[in-house]
Amino acid sequence: MSDRIVGILGGGQLGRMLGAAAALLNIKTIILDVGETGPAKQVLAPTEPHLSHIDGSFTDPARIQELAARADVLTVEIEHVDADVLIHARCETHPSPATIKLIQDKLAQKQHLQSRGCPVSDFIPVDSTVESVHAAAKSLRLPLMLKSRTLAYDGRGNFVLRELSEAQEALTALGDRPLYAEKWVPFTHEIAVMVVRSTTGEVKSYPVVETVHKENVCHLVFAPLRTRDATLARRAQHVAEDAIKTFDGAGVFGVEMFLMADGALYINEIAPRPHNSGHYTIEACETSQYENHLRAILSLPLGSTALKVASAAMLNIIGLSSSMKEINALTDVALTVPGASVHLYGKSECRKGRKMGHITVVAESDAQLRSRLRVLLAALPTSPISETDLYAPEEPRPGSGFSSAHPLVGVIMGSDSDLSVMLPAAHILDHFQIPYELTIVSAHRTPDRLVEYARSAAARGLRTIIAGAGGAAHLPGMVAAMTPLPVIGVPVKGSTLDGVDSLHSIVQMPRGIPVATVAINNGTNAGLLAVRILAAGMPRLIDAMETYLKNLEGEVLGKVEKLKEVGWEIYSAK
Amino acid sequence: MSDRIVGILGGGQLGRMLGAAAALLNIKTIILDVGETGPAKQVLAPTEPHLSHIDGSFTDPARIQELAARADVLTVEIEHVDADVLIHARCETHPSPATIKLIQDKLAQKQHLQSRGCPVSDFIPVDSTVESVHAAAKSLRLPLMLKSRTLAYDGRGNFVLRELSEAQEALTALGDRPLYAEKWVPFTHEIAVMVVRSTTGEVKSYPVVETVHKENVCHLVFAPLRTRDATLARRAQHVAEDAIKTFDGAGVFGVEMFLMADGALYINEIAPRPHNSGHYTIEACETSQYENHLRAILSLPLGSTALKVASAAMLNIIGLSSSMKEINALTDVALTVPGASVHLYGKSECRKGRKMGHITVVAESDAQLRSRLRVLLAALPTSPISETDLYAPEEPRPGSGFSSAHPLVGVIMGSDSDLSVMLPAAHILDHFQIPYELTIVSAHRTPDRLVEYARSAAARGLRTIIAGAGGAAHLPGMVAAMTPLPVIGVPVKGSTLDGVDSLHSIVQMPRGIPVATVAINNGTNAGLLAVRILAAGMPRLIDAMETYLKNLEGEVLGKVEKLKEVGWEIYSAK
Repeated sequence: MSDRIVGILGGGQLGRMLGAAAALLNIKTIILDVGETGPAKQVLAPTEPHLSHIDGSFTDPARIQELAARADVLTVEIEHVDADVLIHARCETHPSPATIKLIQDKLAQKQHLQSRGCPVSDFIPVDSTVESVHAAAKSLRLPLMLKSRTLAYDGRGNFVLRELSEAQEALTALGDRPLYAEKWVPFTHEIAVMVVRSTTGEVKSYPVVETVHKENVCHLVFAPLRTRDATLARRAQHVAEDAIKTFDGAGVFGVEMFLMADGALYINEIAPRPHNSGHYTIEACETSQYENHLRAILSLPLGSTALKVASAAMLNIIGLSSSMKEINALTDVALTVPGASVHLYGKSECRKGRKMGHITVVAESDAQLRSRLRVLLAALPTSPISETDLYAPEEPRPGSGFSSAHPLVGVIMGSDSDLSVMLPAAHILDHFQIPYELTIVSAHRTPDRLVEYARSAAARGLRTIIAGAGGAAHLPGMVAAMTPLPVIGVPVKGSTLDGVDSLHSIVQMPRGIPVATVAINNGTNAGLLAVRILAAGMPRLIDAMETYLKNLEGEVLGKVEKLKEVGWEIYSAK
Repeated sequence: MSDRIVGILGGGQLGRMLGAAAALLNIKTIILDVGETGPAKQVLAPTEPHLSHIDGSFTDPARIQELAARADVLTVEIEHVDADVLIHARCETHPSPATIKLIQDKLAQKQHLQSRGCPVSDFIPVDSTVESVHAAAKSLRLPLMLKSRTLAYDGRGNFVLRELSEAQEALTALGDRPLYAEKWVPFTHEIAVMVVRSTTGEVKSYPVVETVHKENVCHLVFAPLRTRDATLARRAQHVAEDAIKTFDGAGVFGVEMFLMADGALYINEIAPRPHNSGHYTIEACETSQYENHLRAILSLPLGSTALKVASAAMLNIIGLSSSMKEINALTDVALTVPGASVHLYGKSECRKGRKMGHITVVAESDAQLRSRLRVLLAALPTSPISETDLYAPEEPRPGSGFSSAHPLVGVIMGSDSDLSVMLPAAHILDHFQIPYELTIVSAHRTPDRLVEYARSAAARGLRTIIAGAGGAAHLPGMVAAMTPLPVIGVPVKGSTLDGVDSLHSIVQMPRGIPVATVAINNGTNAGLLAVRILAAGMPRLIDAMETYLKNLEGEVLGKVEKLKEVGWEIYSAK
């Protein structure tokens, strides 16, 4: 472990979570921020006088110098520090002061990324005149994003110019800060990747997450990203890693990106520190972003960034007023939600728009995650946002006859004439409360749909597919050829050959591509096999299946008793 | 959330972990212990004067009174407090002072448990005379456990009397404390269950864990318990819950038990607080024992006790000398182990035998857990212990031709003559680095073995079974009838009927019991199906299977090129 003292500029919630990670490793830490007992200082009581925290601003050169003199390594929990003082502080600083300075200026950040071949949308500098704004709008078209180059966060310092006539209003709203203009990006989703970079330049990505913003503030984060595009997650990680490799210094970086309808990615901005979109890593990953930030800046080995749960979400707790009343009501509800972990930041006062805490939810499946999250969202006092389906009315329940929006099992068949064979599979999944979708995919009549369905299944979060088909019965095997998921084949009996044609078509797959074949017309067993397969990742289903088997046994033993009681002649006459 | 102030008697590592949990929920906490900056006080800097910690002993009546006057609820991180003072302190205390007092006296604890019908081994009071010890030995037989009734922990205050002539030596060693004698329990394993009890009497169990002791100190904890006895985990949870229901007061309780060769359970002792065997819950469960203890004593809803990972272990970090050198070497290694989380307790000085920290390891499987843990154990400076296979030479590696000790897949066949068909399944599992076992189980020739194998499979940690059989081919279906796991059936072609007999025997299972059937003689596909099934709980296998499919594609495309290059006459002549 390291004996070096870490000086942190900033003592808010990110400093608090860094501090909690430092305490676990006995890493000595000094916080620089205004006040005696901010969020970070609360969880790090100094054990010796030379580790006492500093009461002062992280933008005050004298205080930064004091911290640099007492610490061995400096880092930031907020990038709006005095980077020039850090450059001259003669203390190892991560990320490098030059990186912090570069990132502070959003125009310089964009120019840097563009010059290194990283995907960014078009932008141009503007000066604070109406003419300059008009020229930018002419070049980049309307609507146009006008942005402050510095001190902008959570949407503050942004103005969306929809008409040329709004130029003066925009300049007034953005004040006298230096500006630049950015081409409007009609993204479909916002995503983010946390990247940790060691002092030797090694980089590791965390899973790609979807971020949902509300009034420009991060509201919800979902991990991992679900998508129909099987290549997206890897592409996004590469974009993020390539971007971070262009910056000096170690630590965790947050890379926010826009995802376009055609799958293209643009980097929106980069945070040179742990990030709101990585809070979920505390409960959901093998090493949290906070511990990995400390490991990186102290030249310790980087930790595993792998998810240790199937599905996770993070909900920010934002102040509504000076009262904690609404927040207490929300966290009281959170205590009733399995898998929910409440993080309150110990801030001295609540204010409208202030981040007061967050709640992480983990679950065994996306559907379970969303049903857990819905309880929290229903307890939010604020109005719904449109960006997510979570505020829509309750999703179809198992047994309603409609597909789940977040299925674990896909039940597909070649023709609606197979429905009577396949419905028993659906009923079994209803019985075990497994979210599934049920639809028609014909290998021979909708081959393109077959390819799209099979190729996207794993990236959409499905864990197994039940496919029923009769006759030449190619559906199960063709799906299995285009997905890494286990495919269960149900041979459907046609009007000739007694279903043996379907059975042999489905079971006799060549070496390399298995189909898990069940008995002819036995949709029930296909459903039960899907449940057994899911149990490999959801141990509670082992108990549920034991109970099911016990009940089967009980049914037959009941018949044994009946037979004994009434005699076989009466029994068989009934 | 709660505004009530929690006073904690004791500020060691358990207080530290309670404190970290309290900070997340903004629960106000006051610690009573000697010193300014012990482990707990380090992570809880008081934000207001009325929350300042108390420097004094948790056995000092005046200090306990002071804590009781300033706190709304009292709790303990150690049971060796002055229970009489607590009884008169007029402050809500959890667990109740009467419970703490009862548990402090191990003889009274045993008598209480026995009187409530909880399983304990035989015991009798003794006074501190040789005659009394001889009488106890006559009644309970040798070897005999002599135990201090009070202030005993980590094996201190225990003496194993093997010969009557050792009686005086025992009395001298145990000093002048009150004693009792316990019948020697020749257990095969030690297990433990953490139980949380609400102020309304609701109880919830954590998973059953195996504990491994070394020189009477908890050394390793494994969760969940693996066993051949499918009923054991539920029985142990019932025993633990029934015991805790007999005590007054809320909070988390640790129930340590002995497991006998015949499956019988005896309660060894109960801790009225969070416990070493529950440290792993911080990383591995939906709610940690520490947060649940706080929820329980504050009358907040109890949190979910479910595991959120497949497998977890905890290794205590015990001081060897006054130097932290060996401990630093160990934690440096831990930083290189994926899934390992280091907890150092911030103790001011290291001492031989002192608990200085712990390391939790989480993993996707028992085999992965053990391979991660082996790296840590190899870095321990102390000598091996015999109680666990972990110190044995490296277990068989995939591809060695021997079974893993911690398999995820069971590969079984009715006869050694099926080996040539089943080996390709094993080779696929080797390729994907999946731990498996391979053995012979004949439905018709070893029916008892079949039953034992199938019934114990899930409790042993298997997630899927591949069964090959020919002819009447009952093995896969009979196994499926006795396990909730997915069973993959491989029809083996015999000398007649071309394997269609085996295929139909395996695939045509009745409604209720599916077998996932693959093509005749296609062991390769059975192995690949097992990998796809495991991917439901191990997402990295999705990527590995994608790569495998890409390689298959590459092989065939290579042949396409070759055919184009050399022409089909030469190609087919080769």
